[in-house]
Amino acid sequence: MAQIRHALNTKREDDFAAWYQEVISAAEMAEESGVRGCMVIRPWGWGIWERMQRLLDDRIKTTGHDNCYFPLFIPLSNFEREAEHVEGFAKEMAVVTHHRLIAGKDGGLVPDPEAKLEEPLVVRPTSETIIGDAMARWVQSWRDLPLKLNQWANVVRWEMRTRMFLRTSEFLWQEGHTAHADETEAKEHTLTMLEVYRAFADEDLALAVIAGEKPENERFPGAVETWSIEAMMQDGKALQAGTSHYLGTNFAQASGIKFQNKEGSESLAHTTSWGVSTRMVGGVIMTHGDDDGLRLPPRIAPQQVVILPMLRDKPEDEALIDYCEALRATLAGQSVFGEPLRVLLDTRPGKAAQKRWDYVRKGAPIIVEVGSRDMEGGVVSMLRRDRLWDAATGKVEFQNPTREVAGQTIPDILADMQNALLAQAAERRDANVTRGITDFAEVEKHFSDSRYPGWVEVQWSRPTGEALEKVVERLKEHKLTIRNVPMDAAPVDGTCIFTGEPAVERVLLAKAY
Amino acid sequence: MAQIRHALNTKREDDFAAWYQEVISAAEMAEESGVRGCMVIRPWGWGIWERMQRLLDDRIKTTGHDNCYFPLFIPLSNFEREAEHVEGFAKEMAVVTHHRLIAGKDGGLVPDPEAKLEEPLVVRPTSETIIGDAMARWVQSWRDLPLKLNQWANVVRWEMRTRMFLRTSEFLWQEGHTAHADETEAKEHTLTMLEVYRAFADEDLALAVIAGEKPENERFPGAVETWSIEAMMQDGKALQAGTSHYLGTNFAQASGIKFQNKEGSESLAHTTSWGVSTRMVGGVIMTHGDDDGLRLPPRIAPQQVVILPMLRDKPEDEALIDYCEALRATLAGQSVFGEPLRVLLDTRPGKAAQKRWDYVRKGAPIIVEVGSRDMEGGVVSMLRRDRLWDAATGKVEFQNPTREVAGQTIPDILADMQNALLAQAAERRDANVTRGITDFAEVEKHFSDSRYPGWVEVQWSRPTGEALEKVVERLKEHKLTIRNVPMDAAPVDGTCIFTGEPAVERVLLAKAY
Ligand SMILES: [Zn+2]
Ligand SMILES: [Zn+2]
Repeated sequence: MAQIRHALNTKREDDFAAWYQEVISAAEMAEESGVRGCMVIRPWGWGIWERMQRLLDDRIKTTGHDNCYFPLFIPLSNFEREAEHVEGFAKEMAVVTHHRLIAGKDGGLVPDPEAKLEEPLVVRPTSETIIGDAMARWVQSWRDLPLKLNQWANVVRWEMRTRMFLRTSEFLWQEGHTAHADETEAKEHTLTMLEVYRAFADEDLALAVIAGEKPENERFPGAVETWSIEAMMQDGKALQAGTSHYLGTNFAQASGIKFQNKEGSESLAHTTSWGVSTRMVGGVIMTHGDDDGLRLPPRIAPQQVVILPMLRDKPEDEALIDYCEALRATLAGQSVFGEPLRVLLDTRPGKAAQKRWDYVRKGAPIIVEVGSRDMEGGVVSMLRRDRLWDAATGKVEFQNPTREVAGQTIPDILADMQNALLAQAAERRDANVTRGITDFAEVEKHFSDSRYPGWVEVQWSRPTGEALEKVVERLKEHKLTIRNVPMDAAPVDGTCIFTGEPAVERVLLAKAY
Repeated sequence: MAQIRHALNTKREDDFAAWYQEVISAAEMAEESGVRGCMVIRPWGWGIWERMQRLLDDRIKTTGHDNCYFPLFIPLSNFEREAEHVEGFAKEMAVVTHHRLIAGKDGGLVPDPEAKLEEPLVVRPTSETIIGDAMARWVQSWRDLPLKLNQWANVVRWEMRTRMFLRTSEFLWQEGHTAHADETEAKEHTLTMLEVYRAFADEDLALAVIAGEKPENERFPGAVETWSIEAMMQDGKALQAGTSHYLGTNFAQASGIKFQNKEGSESLAHTTSWGVSTRMVGGVIMTHGDDDGLRLPPRIAPQQVVILPMLRDKPEDEALIDYCEALRATLAGQSVFGEPLRVLLDTRPGKAAQKRWDYVRKGAPIIVEVGSRDMEGGVVSMLRRDRLWDAATGKVEFQNPTREVAGQTIPDILADMQNALLAQAAERRDANVTRGITDFAEVEKHFSDSRYPGWVEVQWSRPTGEALEKVVERLKEHKLTIRNVPMDAAPVDGTCIFTGEPAVERVLLAKAY
């Protein structure tokens, strides 16, 4: 097997964290902005998020939600309600205290002391309270229910240690909020949205997630049930990729979301909330990236096919561009995944080989290079990003179909690639969930012995309160957390690995982002 | 002519400002949030903005721009650069000074004094400086140009007196920023984007705008040229609906956007910027609304057709819903304006007549009501929102095509309605631009005599500096402003109405929002 010279400097197995940063920079997805904790999302990174938004938004609309928009700023007093229930409340949030800048003494600018806000405003860390206030205004009767809202917005949670896409002070997300007449419907809806997330993660992002309920200690504050989808990264860690919460009547109580029920008396609404954020872009990178950069599932690739004519800055270039343009037009006229195929003919100045590697690093699914010899032969040189190398030769594996065959087969290749990436992710996940461990010492050994221990699925008795706290502490010593209780886990047949009591369900243990 | 009982309490001619607020509330477009200067955009209002975003975004992408995303927060020092050139700099902006809330003495929450930011952050009022910084990093050589970026974002400019959509502290917009190798290309691009805005405003929003250059005093600070599209509202005032700026090398100088040109020496880039905001939603209301509420151009209507079965909460309802569903499916399978037709079958509980008026106020283009008698006759009762009343009878003008004919003709009716709304707006605009006034006293008289004076187009010598200031002062006495120099105005043939010198161009004078 020949040695392959990869396109990145850092290999995943040498330094996964450094590799992650290199992918983001080499694929021109994002960069530091100079503003603490905030990143600039560059066109390629934004294009991916835009595709994700579009696909998830369609799914959210299909399940009957309306989009709307609530203010960026939330009055401090909204958090005071919440703080009453929280001992030692301290929240990392951006606080607006002034509404004007003026020239200071030293020539610089300062917040104008005369323009101090009477009540400071908080930049939304989530919109639960302000949307709750609106729901209380909008819901009067059972006829107004269910109320199913969604918002795409930026939110801010001050972070000291940030990591692009995974943890940034400002991030982008959608937050869904619904109100229902009763518990059954609200709980069902919580699971409907979990399934929307699972389908989006698997079918669109090819993440191969595991959906399940979070243990009590991992619940969203105020939630009665919290469900999540968990994705396995290539370093074996878990990434929580989306959550769906059944909030009972807790938030309805706090915000006063009451309605006259069919019997004519007053009831509290049952609410849900659920969110997915730009963090998921990090999950795509750590699931599909390789030592040559990003690999993108075709459904979310800003460009699914990139055509690179090998221009020489000579009059012959024109014929070559025409030859490529015919392929571009053929492809652009076709559909894949029910949408027009996205194809770019890149005629910017620069060498084709350099551009090829740029698009390899960016993870464009199919790259088509066309030189004058290809044109003479009526063919193109085509590479699939998910099968970049010929292992035998250590060279890039080009295929050379005729231009016509390329035009006809590329939609199928894209569909195939989408499936292949999901299959790879599912295979890796399945190979790295260890089952059958029945005592905790073995769990400890598993996670200390192996560099990529993946996840462990164990049986437990679902302890609560203090008993659960002890479990959490014990796991924490090994930097482990309980991810969720997989919905499709096998039935229990043993005892709890923590308490020795009869097991009631299976839980996943893992290190996590 | 019979008396018509309109759906709103306030008529445009009685109190235009109160009418505007009533439309927004009756159409459930937006409401006050309780947060100073920020509104809640409700699903119907958001649906309109979402349509506008989609249509404008397509146009922006077609002209070669990439979307990206820059931080919400901008360091204070970025504004200090700018402040150096501005005497008595004072800007109404939201200033973040702390990054944590803690419990205060009285049980409430306060910004944590220990978490005071070393350098305050400003919530972006526009992203010129931070995008300029990025462009300086990304542009090295002529090969990197043109660089054509766009961002959809929320921005904040503190406002004391707010008005929904027209002037809010937080608003939503797109801001385009481009860098070019030379003046010619940058100037051309400024006009390309102006034309994108004009086409969007006319073809999608049916606003019938006038595109032209702003006079020197109305230029964006730092711009060499500022162009605008101006729309005439039904009260005769002007609304600036979009601007496009050629910034010369001023911003490139401030941010250091330099590149190695083809000759190998260093040049400053020429930049442009252009923006359109949620303010345009206000323009749609004030252009198309009538005394029954909003009227929406079909291209931006969240639902183009609403079908209302007259349900009676009886077993027969099922057959009625099936009858309606067949029409819904027929319509949903068709295209209009190159997109799938948007149709809603509304089966929520509630009376059809009440719902009809709700959708009339919301401005849904076509409302189809179906009762059991319609079903028996194989017909539907259909109304066009732009021709609501039969003037002779004072009643709503229903048409009763067969269900099949309705299914076939509705796409054409929608296209017709889109054209009709544009024609109405253009007609009103043309009827209300007064030309031929040759001295200023006559202008004064025109604007003081008439309650709806519209706009006046006069000839002027394009005074600059102090001479222009005098003109502006004089206009200000009558609350008038110079809107722009229409691109397609007739050639000049007289003298300047202000200076008496030979005229060089024609300008529009108007009161404005
Ligand atoms: Zn959550
Ligand atoms: Zn501007």
